[in-house]
Amino acid sequence: MKLGMIGLGKMGYNLVLNIMDNGHSVVGTDVNAEQVNNIIRDGAEGAFSIEELVEKLESPRVVWVMVPAGEITENVIHKLSGLLSAGDIVIDGGNSHYKKSIARGKLLDEKGIYFFDVGTSGGTSGARKDACTMIGGDPEVFKTIEPLFKDVSIQNGYLYAGPMGSGHYLKMIHNGIEYGMMAAIAEGFDILEKSEFDYDFEAVARVWNNGSVIRSWLMELTENAFSKDPKLEGIRGIMNSSGEGKWTIEEALDLQVAAPVITMSLLMRYRSLEDDTFTGKVVAALRNEFGGHEVVRK
Amino acid sequence: MKLGMIGLGKMGYNLVLNIMDNGHSVVGTDVNAEQVNNIIRDGAEGAFSIEELVEKLESPRVVWVMVPAGEITENVIHKLSGLLSAGDIVIDGGNSHYKKSIARGKLLDEKGIYFFDVGTSGGTSGARKDACTMIGGDPEVFKTIEPLFKDVSIQNGYLYAGPMGSGHYLKMIHNGIEYGMMAAIAEGFDILEKSEFDYDFEAVARVWNNGSVIRSWLMELTENAFSKDPKLEGIRGIMNSSGEGKWTIEEALDLQVAAPVITMSLLMRYRSLEDDTFTGKVVAALRNEFGGHEVVRK
Amino acid sequence: MKLGMIGLGKMGYNLVLNIMDNGHSVVGTDVNAEQVNNIIRDGAEGAFSIEELVEKLESPRVVWVMVPAGEITENVIHKLSGLLSAGDIVIDGGNSHYKKSIARGKLLDEKGIYFFDVGTSGGTSGARKDACTMIGGDPEVFKTIEPLFKDVSIQNGYLYAGPMGSGHYLKMIHNGIEYGMMAAIAEGFDILEKSEFDYDFEAVARVWNNGSVIRSWLMELTENAFSKDPKLEGIRGIMNSSGEGKWTIEEALDLQVAAPVITMSLLMRYRSLEDDTFTGKVVAALRNEFGGHEVVRK
Amino acid sequence: MKLGMIGLGKMGYNLVLNIMDNGHSVVGTDVNAEQVNNIIRDGAEGAFSIEELVEKLESPRVVWVMVPAGEITENVIHKLSGLLSAGDIVIDGGNSHYKKSIARGKLLDEKGIYFFDVGTSGGTSGARKDACTMIGGDPEVFKTIEPLFKDVSIQNGYLYAGPMGSGHYLKMIHNGIEYGMMAAIAEGFDILEKSEFDYDFEAVARVWNNGSVIRSWLMELTENAFSKDPKLEGIRGIMNSSGEGKWTIEEALDLQVAAPVITMSLLMRYRSLEDDTFTGKVVAALRNEFGGHEVVRK
Repeated sequence: MKLGMIGLGKMGYNLVLNIMDNGHSVVGTDVNAEQVNNIIRDGAEGAFSIEELVEKLESPRVVWVMVPAGEITENVIHKLSGLLSAGDIVIDGGNSHYKKSIARGKLLDEKGIYFFDVGTSGGTSGARKDACTMIGGDPEVFKTIEPLFKDVSIQNGYLYAGPMGSGHYLKMIHNGIEYGMMAAIAEGFDILEKSEFDYDFEAVARVWNNGSVIRSWLMELTENAFSKDPKLEGIRGIMNSSGEGKWTIEEALDLQVAAPVITMSLLMRYRSLEDDTFTGKVVAALRNEFGGHEVVRK
Repeated sequence: MKLGMIGLGKMGYNLVLNIMDNGHSVVGTDVNAEQVNNIIRDGAEGAFSIEELVEKLESPRVVWVMVPAGEITENVIHKLSGLLSAGDIVIDGGNSHYKKSIARGKLLDEKGIYFFDVGTSGGTSGARKDACTMIGGDPEVFKTIEPLFKDVSIQNGYLYAGPMGSGHYLKMIHNGIEYGMMAAIAEGFDILEKSEFDYDFEAVARVWNNGSVIRSWLMELTENAFSKDPKLEGIRGIMNSSGEGKWTIEEALDLQVAAPVITMSLLMRYRSLEDDTFTGKVVAALRNEFGGHEVVRK
Repeated sequence: MKLGMIGLGKMGYNLVLNIMDNGHSVVGTDVNAEQVNNIIRDGAEGAFSIEELVEKLESPRVVWVMVPAGEITENVIHKLSGLLSAGDIVIDGGNSHYKKSIARGKLLDEKGIYFFDVGTSGGTSGARKDACTMIGGDPEVFKTIEPLFKDVSIQNGYLYAGPMGSGHYLKMIHNGIEYGMMAAIAEGFDILEKSEFDYDFEAVARVWNNGSVIRSWLMELTENAFSKDPKLEGIRGIMNSSGEGKWTIEEALDLQVAAPVITMSLLMRYRSLEDDTFTGKVVAALRNEFGGHEVVRK
Repeated sequence: MKLGMIGLGKMGYNLVLNIMDNGHSVVGTDVNAEQVNNIIRDGAEGAFSIEELVEKLESPRVVWVMVPAGEITENVIHKLSGLLSAGDIVIDGGNSHYKKSIARGKLLDEKGIYFFDVGTSGGTSGARKDACTMIGGDPEVFKTIEPLFKDVSIQNGYLYAGPMGSGHYLKMIHNGIEYGMMAAIAEGFDILEKSEFDYDFEAVARVWNNGSVIRSWLMELTENAFSKDPKLEGIRGIMNSSGEGKWTIEEALDLQVAAPVITMSLLMRYRSLEDDTFTGKVVAALRNEFGGHEVVRK
C-alpha cells in the first residue's frame, strides 16, 4: 500500500518508519522542511506541501494525519476536504476529541471522502514498532486499510471499534484509565516514601512487576524511572495534562457516571500546578475567625 | 451551683466567666498560676493544684475539665479518679475521642464517680456566652447538672445526647460537617477568584448571607475575613487540623459509610501542608517515560 | 415602577406578589392562561401573550423573564429581541448558564436593548418575600432598576455583581457551594445513623442550629425535615440535580481549579440514580478472577 | 530445606505443592484433617496438630503460617511462641496488619525466635507457581531462608524489604494500589457502557492489553472476565473488601499523605454495599425543603 503521512513529529515520523518496515511506501510532509528531508533520507518520498503530497498519491488516496489535536488538525482536514476526491480516505491518528472527529467525518462524508478516527497508544516506541490502534469509521471501507493497521500494530493490537468517533472515544477513555492507574501507583509510593521504612523504590517496583497483581507496563516504567533517580530528587511534582483526562471526566458528567477515581486523579494534577490555593486561604482565614487558630502569614 | 474548673485557657477561662454570669460559683485551677490569679481577680475562687480544687468543693463535687485532649486530659482524669468520691461528677468539655471518653467513664464508674462527655461548639465567643453543648452520660444524674448547661448555652443550645461517649461523638461529627462546609465555601471562592469576573468577595459573602440558601455562620465569618483582607493576600493557604475531622473519617471507614465530601476536605488540608508531593513526582516521571513529556527539574 | 413578568410558575408568581407588595405594578403573562387569570385576581394586569405584554408596557419597558432555563428562555429572549426597542430592559431571573446569558446579552445589545442576568436564591419563600438577588449587566442602567431589586430582596440581599454574565455566574457558584454544604451535612447524619448511639436527629439538628459553628439555613431545613419524618423512612435517597452543580464543576475544570468537595457532592448524586453500577460489576468480576472471591449473582 | 506449613487453605496448599516442586520437604497441618490427608497423598508429611508439626521438625525449625489474618494468626503465633525454641524461624505469609506483625515479631524475639512477615501476591495461581513475595525481618537470618523464597517466587519476584513489618507494609500498599487501578479500569468501562457506542468489551480489553500504555495483568483479567460474560449481566456490582485497602488509607491519614484516588476506590466499594443511603435521603429531603423538588417516596 502507498499512503501519505501529514505530520512528521515524534509520533508521525516513527509511524512512517514502522509503516515502511512493513513493506508499504509513504509520501511524508511536515511544516518543518528539515523533517521532510530527513524522512527522504530514511527512504520515504517527500512532499513540501499538502498539495504536493496529494498529487503524489493515486486514487483512491490514503492520507494519515498525525498533527497536534485542535486547530492544526482542523485546518489540515479542511484543506484535505478541498484537495481529495470521492473514494479517498483520511485517517486522523491524533488525540482529537471524538465529537470533533464525528463532525469532521461528516464534513468529508459529504464529498464522498471516508474518514477514520484512530486512537494510537504505546507512546513513541509503540509508534515505531508494535503500536496499539483503535479505529472508528465505515466497517466495509475499513477492510481495505485493515492490513495497514495489522502491520503497524503489535499482534492483537488493533481494533475496529465501531462507527466514526468510536476510535477516538476509546483512546479518550484509555487515557482516563491511565490517569487513574498512574495516580494509584504514585499515591502508593508517596505513602511508602513517608513511612517508617526505608524502601528501595526501584527494587519495590521490580518485585511488583514480577508475579504481583499490579504488574503492568506503567509499573515497569516506574521501575525505569527509579533506576535513573532513586528518590526522584531531581524533579518537581508538577503534573501537566494534555486534555484527554479532562474530556473523560466531562463525558462521565454528561452521562451521569460517577467516576471519582479518574476525576480525583485529574483534580490532583490541577492542584499540583499551584504553589498555594485560594481554597486554602479561605479555610485558614475561617479557622482563625471561629477558633483563633493562627494563620501562616506571608 | 458550685463547681470546679480545671483548665483556664481560652475556652475554660471564658466558660468560667459565663458560668459566673449565670449566678454559679467556680473554683478554678490551671498549670499556669497567673491564670489562676487572673480568674481570682475576675471573681472566682482559685486553686493552685487539682488537690486544692477538690478540697474546696463539697460533696457531691462537680468538676469540669477543660484541658487539651489526649495525654493531658488522660492525666487529669486519672488524678481525679484518685481524689474524688462516689457520687461526684466529672465533666470533660474538651475535644476527646469518644472511645477514650467511654473508657474514662468506665474507669470513673468503677469508683461510683459519674462522667459526662461534653462537646462544646461556638468557639471562644460561644464559651463566653451562648455556647452550644452536647452531653453524653447518665440520664438521671444529668438532671442534677442540667441547669448548668441550660445557663451557659444559648437558648435550645444544649442537648442531652445519650449514654457516655455520645456527646463527644456528636461534636466529632459536627466538626466533620464543619470541615466539609468550609471546604465547599472555600472552593466556591477559589473558582470566583480565577473567573473572568472581578468580584468583591466581601460583598459576595454579604449578599449570600442575606436571603440565600447558603446563609450560615461560616459565611458570616467569611464576610468578616474578607472585610479585613479583601483578597486574603496576607496569608498562606496552609490548612491545619486538630484531629476531629480525621476521627470522623476513621469512624466512617469503620462503619463503612461512604463520606467522600468530608473525606476530601481533610485530604486537601493534608495536601496543603506540602509544597510538593512525591505523588506528583512519580506521575511526572511516568509521563516522561512513556510520552517523553518534559518534567520540571529543580 | 411598572414592569412585565414572563413566567408565572412557582418563582415568577411569588415574585410578582412580592413586587406588587412593594408598590410596583406588574403585567404578567404565562403559557398557562389560568395562571394569568389568577394573577389578575391577585391584582396584576394580565397578558395572554408576550406581544400583548409588550404592548401594555411603556418605553423604556422593563421585562422580567422567569421561565425554565434552556430552550424556553432562549425562545422567549429571541422573541423579545424582535418586539422590544432600544432602551428597553430585559431581566433573566432564571438559572441560565452564564455563557448563554453573555451571548443573549450581546444579541440584545446589538439592538440597543439592555440585558441583566439575575441569580435568584432563597427558594420560593424567598421569591415571595426577602429574596436574594445577584445582578450582572450595565452598571449605569442598573441604577434605574436598582430600586426594584432593593425592594424585592431582603436587606443587604441584592448585589450588583459586575458585567453581563456575572450574576448568573455567582448563582452557579452559590449552587455549587450549596451542593457541597448539603452533602457535608448529609454525610454527617449518615455516620450518626450507623453509629452505636441512638440519636434524635431533629434534636441534633436543633442544637447545632443554636450556637454551633455549623448553624445555617440548611441545618434549619434539616431540622424541619426531621421534624416531619424523624428517620426519613418514607423517602428514597435519590438525589436529582438541575444543572448548576455540574456547571460549577465544568467551570472549575476549565479554570483548572481543584474543587474536589463540590465535585464529589455531584458524583454521589449521580451514583444515587443507579441501583447498581457497571463499575461495581467490573471490580467484583476482577476480584473473582485473581483471588477467587465470590461474586453476588443475580 | 524442610519446613512446616500451618494452614492448608487455597493459598497454603498451593504453596506446599510449589515448595515441594522445588525440592524441599514439608510437614503440613490444618484444622481440617481432610486437608492434611490430601496433602499426605500429594507427597507431604502430615501433622494433625501444631504440636505434632513442631515435633516433626528439627532445629533450627522453620514454620510458615498461612492462616486467616486476625485472631487465628494471633492464636497460632502465640501457640508457636510456646512450642518453638531459640533459633527457630516463624514466617507469617498471610495478610496481617504490619503493626501486629511488629508486635508478634517482638514477642517471638524475646524467646530468641526469628520472625519474618511476608506479603504474598499473585493470587492462588501465584502461590502454586511463580509467587511474588515481600519479606521483612532480620537481614542476616533472612539469608538462611532466602533459597526458599527464590524457589517459590517467579524470577525477580521476591524482595527482602527491610526490618520486621516492612513485608506486610509493602503488601498493604500493593493492595491499596490494586484498589485504585481496579477502580480506574472499572470506571473506564462504566463510561464505555453508557456511551453512544456499542463496544465489544472483551475486544476492547484485548486491544488495550496489546501495546497500550495501560496493559497490565488486571486488564488481562478484565479480558478474561468479559470473555465469560460479555456484559457482566449475571453478577451484581457489590464490591467487598478484605481490609488492606482500608489499612492503606488509615496509614495515609496517619502520615498526612493525601491519597484521594486510593481513598475514593474504597469509598465506592462501601457505597456499593448499600442499596440506598441516608446521605441521599437527607439531601433529597433538603432539596424538597428549600426548592419544593419532589422526593421519591417508597
